[in-house]
Amino acid sequence: MSVKFAVLGHGVVGSGVVELFYKNKKSIEKRAGTEMDVKYILDLRDFPDSPYADKFTKDFNDILNDDEVTSVAECMGGVEPAFTFVKSCLEKGKSVSTSNKELVAEKGDILLKTAKEHNCNFFFEASVGGAIPIIRPLHRCLAANDITKVAGILNGTTNFILTKMYNDNMPFADALKLAQELGYAEKDPTADIEGHDACRKICIISSLVFGKHVYPSSVYTKGISQVELCDVAAADVLGYAIKLVASVTKLDNGNILPCVMPTLVSYDNIMSGVNDVFNSVLVYGDGIDQTMFYGRGAGKFPTASAVLGDVIEAVKHNVTVFSQSWESASDNSFVENVDSYKSRWYFRVPSDSAVEGVEAYNHDDGMSFVINNELTFAEAKAKAEKLGALAFMPVLE
Amino acid sequence: MSVKFAVLGHGVVGSGVVELFYKNKKSIEKRAGTEMDVKYILDLRDFPDSPYADKFTKDFNDILNDDEVTSVAECMGGVEPAFTFVKSCLEKGKSVSTSNKELVAEKGDILLKTAKEHNCNFFFEASVGGAIPIIRPLHRCLAANDITKVAGILNGTTNFILTKMYNDNMPFADALKLAQELGYAEKDPTADIEGHDACRKICIISSLVFGKHVYPSSVYTKGISQVELCDVAAADVLGYAIKLVASVTKLDNGNILPCVMPTLVSYDNIMSGVNDVFNSVLVYGDGIDQTMFYGRGAGKFPTASAVLGDVIEAVKHNVTVFSQSWESASDNSFVENVDSYKSRWYFRVPSDSAVEGVEAYNHDDGMSFVINNELTFAEAKAKAEKLGALAFMPVLE
Repeated sequence: MSVKFAVLGHGVVGSGVVELFYKNKKSIEKRAGTEMDVKYILDLRDFPDSPYADKFTKDFNDILNDDEVTSVAECMGGVEPAFTFVKSCLEKGKSVSTSNKELVAEKGDILLKTAKEHNCNFFFEASVGGAIPIIRPLHRCLAANDITKVAGILNGTTNFILTKMYNDNMPFADALKLAQELGYAEKDPTADIEGHDACRKICIISSLVFGKHVYPSSVYTKGISQVELCDVAAADVLGYAIKLVASVTKLDNGNILPCVMPTLVSYDNIMSGVNDVFNSVLVYGDGIDQTMFYGRGAGKFPTASAVLGDVIEAVKHNVTVFSQSWESASDNSFVENVDSYKSRWYFRVPSDSAVEGVEAYNHDDGMSFVINNELTFAEAKAKAEKLGALAFMPVLE
Repeated sequence: MSVKFAVLGHGVVGSGVVELFYKNKKSIEKRAGTEMDVKYILDLRDFPDSPYADKFTKDFNDILNDDEVTSVAECMGGVEPAFTFVKSCLEKGKSVSTSNKELVAEKGDILLKTAKEHNCNFFFEASVGGAIPIIRPLHRCLAANDITKVAGILNGTTNFILTKMYNDNMPFADALKLAQELGYAEKDPTADIEGHDACRKICIISSLVFGKHVYPSSVYTKGISQVELCDVAAADVLGYAIKLVASVTKLDNGNILPCVMPTLVSYDNIMSGVNDVFNSVLVYGDGIDQTMFYGRGAGKFPTASAVLGDVIEAVKHNVTVFSQSWESASDNSFVENVDSYKSRWYFRVPSDSAVEGVEAYNHDDGMSFVINNELTFAEAKAKAEKLGALAFMPVLE
């Protein structure tokens, strides 16, 4: 018997799923333990020259109403119509594997519940960190751990820009333009550079690790558009690389604190060496100490690889995998305000400032230093105002 | 109903499994979907002051013949009596999770077959890379990929020594002595420094990725005892860190080439930043491009965390997970000789040598350079002899 699956969307990721599947069909079938084939590809556009032209449909109902299709790969992006399509598939008992982080971050709890009710699976490995296996290791391999913190470089576009600023002394605006030219950044780059994309991903990780849906709107998010070259250079002298870090910390009171901020990462931390469009996720637990996952966070085949890995898993499991799931949350009162985020901090102050007890680095654009003790975000902000600071950022040791 | 498991061995790892289990019992049971408890701990020694004193037994048959025990964690080390004990458990349908790389590297095929025949599982995540989830991601999350190469820093002791040589200019003998004082190296450090430990681990990875048992005796293995400070320093100037790299490459003819060698890792490669006792595994595939897994490769709780993760998985699955398995191999003729290992190479030659077409770095102990083109091991060895080279090592880009 051959298992049939459908691919929703024939953009970059969706076409990658089909291509990679046919390239490695034999070994994929061996791993899945059954023959497999793509029966439909859903897209409103025409692809007359595609070798898979006979598989295209513009009508979602062809897929929904075909009982032979037991698994679906959703690669359309955006909340609608993806949400309606995915929910309908799950209600028919068809497992869905998605690369759509917006969908998972906004509607994950509902879709997980629907999958559970209809004894199928909603998988989303590809929605965080592209090719990096992180969702499954988090809930499975690290199952024996009390996970205390997860911190990641979850957006390739901003990491490319920061790497260019660092390596080539290229100002933010030029690096962004280059990223756009290379296809790493969209014409409207807001979602990437202002941190919204990284925010969605840390929401998915937070929901999975802590068991309750965390909404993007409850997460403090600051992007990299205000990071200046002089801070990148000063951080280097002080022993740090500036990265856009999305993190979630478990607090002693049981609440969690997810946030996205430009952050100084110590050169002693392996994550400081994650460059260009690469992503990484660092997991801290009481058993493992720290473990990092690294790889391409986006791109046609890396993302397709993660989607297909999920499709294979869905084909192998014909019952719901409960552990890779979380509950709905009527409110996000368990999400702590960023004001209580604790860290050491970097400050850049005017050159004539009086600061004591720190080793300050003097340069053309002021005086930069990292304080030795930890302060909350609220305290650091107050200190920055008092000092008339030109910049302040947290530090990841 | 409460699931009962037994822990074989109460050394560093075995005691860690028990401690970590009771520390995180509640969340572990939530993830396993059932109550769990340790029923027996097997050790020939007495532990009268242990809080778990009532669970100890010196008689393996207590465990074997107790039908209530459905899962076993093997943390004894060594091939015997571990092999006999594990095989007996599997024959009774008890799943076994092990941290014992020697056992898996020598007898993995037999034990996987036994598990399959008795519809239970033989899991070994902890046998490679300690806390790093690598076995499961390799066969699951990366299932859609044609994996072309895996390269790793798989031994913490040698990585600690090389890091000390690099950071502190400490000669090999002194760094080894320090590692022994800190408990990172054993009194007889041969298995670590001569690469045998890394060899066992790359055998396990090779077997899993390519589906057939690869025996340690068929793998070319060279340790770090001949790595000199001057080579570490020269490599740095040329843009590389020297690491003990265990790798396996898939060749065009379908054969594989596993080997263990001190290797120059380019600073452009994230693995060059893996220091101290940390381990890492870099996986190359046609979909993912490259993905790296990083973490503590040894130690009480990191290893215990991986064993417990497997125990939880075994408790959740009451049927054999076929995909995490490989076949027996009557011979290792599919393992290619190291002579055909292809790479760029580093050479150190006497100062008065005539070399052309390379940028050589002159220093007190000779002249160091990396060639621009690829050569096989056999060709590089011939070139080294012709040049009267004082050292030569492959390069990982």
